[in-house]
Amino acid sequence: MDDVLYNAPFLKACRGEPTEVTPVWLMRQAGRYMEEYQALKRQSASFLEFCKTPELTAQATLDAQRILNVDAAILFADLPPILEPMGLELDYPEGIGPAIANPVRDRDAIVALRDEDPATTMPFVGETVKLVRADLPVDIPLIGFSGAPFTLASYAIEGRGSRNYIFAKQIMYGDPEGWDLLMGKLVRAVTRYLQYQIDAGVQAVQLFDSWVGCLTPNDYKTRVLPYTKAVIDALKGQVPVIHFGTGAAGFMDLMHAAGADVLGFDWRTPMSAYWDRLGCTAAQGNMDPIALCADRQTVLRMAQEVLDDIGGRAGHIFNLGHGIVPQTPVDNVKALVDYVHECTAL
Amino acid sequence: MDDVLYNAPFLKACRGEPTEVTPVWLMRQAGRYMEEYQALKRQSASFLEFCKTPELTAQATLDAQRILNVDAAILFADLPPILEPMGLELDYPEGIGPAIANPVRDRDAIVALRDEDPATTMPFVGETVKLVRADLPVDIPLIGFSGAPFTLASYAIEGRGSRNYIFAKQIMYGDPEGWDLLMGKLVRAVTRYLQYQIDAGVQAVQLFDSWVGCLTPNDYKTRVLPYTKAVIDALKGQVPVIHFGTGAAGFMDLMHAAGADVLGFDWRTPMSAYWDRLGCTAAQGNMDPIALCADRQTVLRMAQEVLDDIGGRAGHIFNLGHGIVPQTPVDNVKALVDYVHECTAL
Repeated sequence: MDDVLYNAPFLKACRGEPTEVTPVWLMRQAGRYMEEYQALKRQSASFLEFCKTPELTAQATLDAQRILNVDAAILFADLPPILEPMGLELDYPEGIGPAIANPVRDRDAIVALRDEDPATTMPFVGETVKLVRADLPVDIPLIGFSGAPFTLASYAIEGRGSRNYIFAKQIMYGDPEGWDLLMGKLVRAVTRYLQYQIDAGVQAVQLFDSWVGCLTPNDYKTRVLPYTKAVIDALKGQVPVIHFGTGAAGFMDLMHAAGADVLGFDWRTPMSAYWDRLGCTAAQGNMDPIALCADRQTVLRMAQEVLDDIGGRAGHIFNLGHGIVPQTPVDNVKALVDYVHECTAL
Repeated sequence: MDDVLYNAPFLKACRGEPTEVTPVWLMRQAGRYMEEYQALKRQSASFLEFCKTPELTAQATLDAQRILNVDAAILFADLPPILEPMGLELDYPEGIGPAIANPVRDRDAIVALRDEDPATTMPFVGETVKLVRADLPVDIPLIGFSGAPFTLASYAIEGRGSRNYIFAKQIMYGDPEGWDLLMGKLVRAVTRYLQYQIDAGVQAVQLFDSWVGCLTPNDYKTRVLPYTKAVIDALKGQVPVIHFGTGAAGFMDLMHAAGADVLGFDWRTPMSAYWDRLGCTAAQGNMDPIALCADRQTVLRMAQEVLDDIGGRAGHIFNLGHGIVPQTPVDNVKALVDYVHECTAL
């Protein structure tokens, strides 16, 4: 890796090194709240087609980084498409979000899940990485990502967003061998997918375990953590791995034990207290994304609260505690990024 | 209060005293999963009418206690109806849940909220308490309850269940004086409502702050905790107050600081670790309610996990970490209650 890129504030922070400015990027920074993204999306017949068109996803990735002036770009992609080459029929019905026509509900369905080469089945992802990397400023890292095995298992089993995860838990509890088989297949798929992104040129990867907040600490420990750890172990040392979940304040010690380089915090967590207790090297977070829907003064005050809480620790990557919501005024987001840069510049 | 009732295991546990058996009751123990409840509900034209018919709500309350053999009954009621006499037009459209036609969105709407006597506006609640108390076994306490000010404010502002609480947070952040006025009115309404239930004959009350899990610890501390504490302070010493929220694992120390007699834990929280750290006198929880949708063996194993975690501490009230969901087989619930009784009997 080029020296300029290696010494980008975001990557230095991932390694726990002091930085000249606190790096900031925002989950779902390229998204529906942004006009430029909406315009790009209108060029596709469907969201899934959009995801598979490298010219468009690359542009969405680049637009967000440039417009917001954030310290990292993140590959435009969604979590569920990795399930398609495994044999699941994925669609995005209007107003519903991802929906799987043939969700995994028994052992046979788990056994039938295929193990494919992402370079063959998802070439659009590698192409997007290459297109973005070619046009991104040389000092701006590109983050790749994937859903973590548990969150993908929940999508695969529930078939769509769920409130209670009843089907997923029925398999997790009722068929431990089937669960192990499913999670093992997902470990393999996620590892290959992230390795493919690394090989294509990303400088860091984030593992989103968005739905772990539905689990008891003990279920997380015994039925999820070993699989997440297997993914992280397989990638370790190549690029920094960021590990993010929501609603997991009760078992952040276990998430930390998965061994990622950077631990991501949601907004419901007193970040510095956890940082000290867990002994994090680097941590990412954790402003309430909904504060971005308030007035400008509130946006800056809430940003300052996060900065005050962290107190300038080396290894802090400023982010939200969850993704930007569609109702967010883009000017508030720009103001937030500028504010963090101004307040933390040495 | 009668000696037999005063020494009921549930009330002894509320005081942190050792009990001959771990008392158990279950949030939403009278609910849609139970056939007897469904039959009662069919006798009303609507859910709201059901809530206002003391003979039916009393029967639902009594049925659940008798069928499950739990150690406490809980008044059948819902959280939003307290908002109706304040001036909000509440309805329960099929498949949507509570919906308010004129949600509170500005200062004028907050100012207009009325302060009424619950004995006049909600006499059906007092009547239900009296009917239940008359027919409940003499050694079984009856629990009253209310939504906490924040959760009721969110209902009042959002108008229905919300994913992101954007409107509520816009007022909370953008109009601190309006927020204070609204929360103050809700403190008064909740306090009067619970006092009315106590006067009518309940032996304990639970404050449900179901939605606090959307807040940052600092917002909880400055914009919610003082109001919840005001309610608890006003009731303190009359009957035990149980204080329950979900998704608040990151700030249980603050919830504990509200000063209730019993702290309720959701299933995502390692309960004994928090109990020790916070120095709780009594605590309630915290089995994953979705485990009740699994096979029988899983139900009992998950119950045993909670009991193992707690290790027989005096002051433990066994409960779920959230309400029973409609898909739950009633036989699993019965088996759970029996198991807790059998395993913990001295």
